[in-house]
Amino acid sequence: MSKPLILVSNDDGITAPGIRNLVDAVKHLGEVVIVAPDSPQSAMGHAVTISKPLRLEKTDIYGEITAYQCSGTPADCVKLAVDKVLHRKPDLLVSGINHGSNSSINVLYSGTMSAAMEGAIEGIPAVGFSLCNFAYDADFSFAKKVATSVSSNILKNGLPQGTLLNVNIPNLKEDEIKGSKICRQANAKWKEEFDERTDPNGRNYFWLTGKFINNDKGEDTDEWALANGYVSIVPVHFDLTAHHAIPFLNEWDLTI
Amino acid sequence: MSKPLILVSNDDGITAPGIRNLVDAVKHLGEVVIVAPDSPQSAMGHAVTISKPLRLEKTDIYGEITAYQCSGTPADCVKLAVDKVLHRKPDLLVSGINHGSNSSINVLYSGTMSAAMEGAIEGIPAVGFSLCNFAYDADFSFAKKVATSVSSNILKNGLPQGTLLNVNIPNLKEDEIKGSKICRQANAKWKEEFDERTDPNGRNYFWLTGKFINNDKGEDTDEWALANGYVSIVPVHFDLTAHHAIPFLNEWDLTI
Repeated sequence: MSKPLILVSNDDGITAPGIRNLVDAVKHLGEVVIVAPDSPQSAMGHAVTISKPLRLEKTDIYGEITAYQCSGTPADCVKLAVDKVLHRKPDLLVSGINHGSNSSINVLYSGTMSAAMEGAIEGIPAVGFSLCNFAYDADFSFAKKVATSVSSNILKNGLPQGTLLNVNIPNLKEDEIKGSKICRQANAKWKEEFDERTDPNGRNYFWLTGKFINNDKGEDTDEWALANGYVSIVPVHFDLTAHHAIPFLNEWDLTI
Repeated sequence: MSKPLILVSNDDGITAPGIRNLVDAVKHLGEVVIVAPDSPQSAMGHAVTISKPLRLEKTDIYGEITAYQCSGTPADCVKLAVDKVLHRKPDLLVSGINHGSNSSINVLYSGTMSAAMEGAIEGIPAVGFSLCNFAYDADFSFAKKVATSVSSNILKNGLPQGTLLNVNIPNLKEDEIKGSKICRQANAKWKEEFDERTDPNGRNYFWLTGKFINNDKGEDTDEWALANGYVSIVPVHFDLTAHHAIPFLNEWDLTI
């Protein structure tokens, strides 16, 4: 029986410490192939590149592990890997480890999660990992153990069709971590506060900044888990239908 | 009582015929403010701009209607509108009319829908409209009537909290349209087929192309509605939790 094939991607770029730790976390579980952006692609959401051509270049920065860097978004990387790099469907796609949280509503903005989402759309069991620490030199040692454990479980148990996992790891020392919780996405949001400035030519410009607002009191949410010392694991799907709203809409008068 | 405030955005850019038709469709329903990208932003998914500053410029191309063009993504446009342009929360956000379908899985890749999604996250009743015709000179006359009817219904009835609408209009003559259907998102996907070419310097590059594959036989889907002459209306939400997968995951051994 051949070893499991594991595709690794991320959104912080192929040289980021997070993806190097993720490769270390899963390389003993199967044959690893890396296809990741050649530059940071944070907050790219589920963007794909249709208006310009993509580059895909082999790189030896991972030694004997096959690795490609791509000029596109995380979703582009997965699409290119499936169509042009891999000779069979991977058994697992792991994305990350992201430098910074992708909990709650951030799943929508996250490039890390869009790589995992694209994998799930392709029918590949997929998971995105994020450490709640934005620093380049964050300590990934515990996050790496989480990545190994969750990846082993997916290889062993599979995932329900059409679902992927969003795993966030609190920025705590290992002995402060209480365990892991299966959660729902908290109903939280960003309150944007654009920082308005004037350039040397006298024209205005804006930097996006914001405050994260969590009004969700539920103790079954990812935000609760993270705030209370647990690794949060949210099963995610790509059927965005609000099924509960269908009866309400069926009462509308939509004569056109 | 003041008139409803209606924010208009899109992803094809502020000069596209689709958004001009949308403005025509809703301008008699309230006070319209337009904040849209200054260039095409198709397939941007839910990307937001964090690594470079944003420009926001007032334009008089819509005559007396307040209009701004923004250098960012559709989601950026909505965030800037809410924080910097509008003096109160809009009563309605309309996005589009997109040149091309955003049915099924395309809701994830669509810039049009990401503007509407960002509105919904802000608590604004929101809808994205798409005409199943990519042409610049597509006939928007019937799509415009759909936009008026759906927008009036939202202003009158509201939308359940946390939901928005994804409305797609078949590329048919008005007398061929059978009506509208409230649908679920079809379980369909793109099978990518990258077109590999060689540049004048001998380096390879790739264009993303693909085939749309719909294996979903359900007659309650948006794809079924569109193929059978109906306008499809899918209620969408931004809780991506796959709630049905939680019991399965709770049986895993996640000792780390």
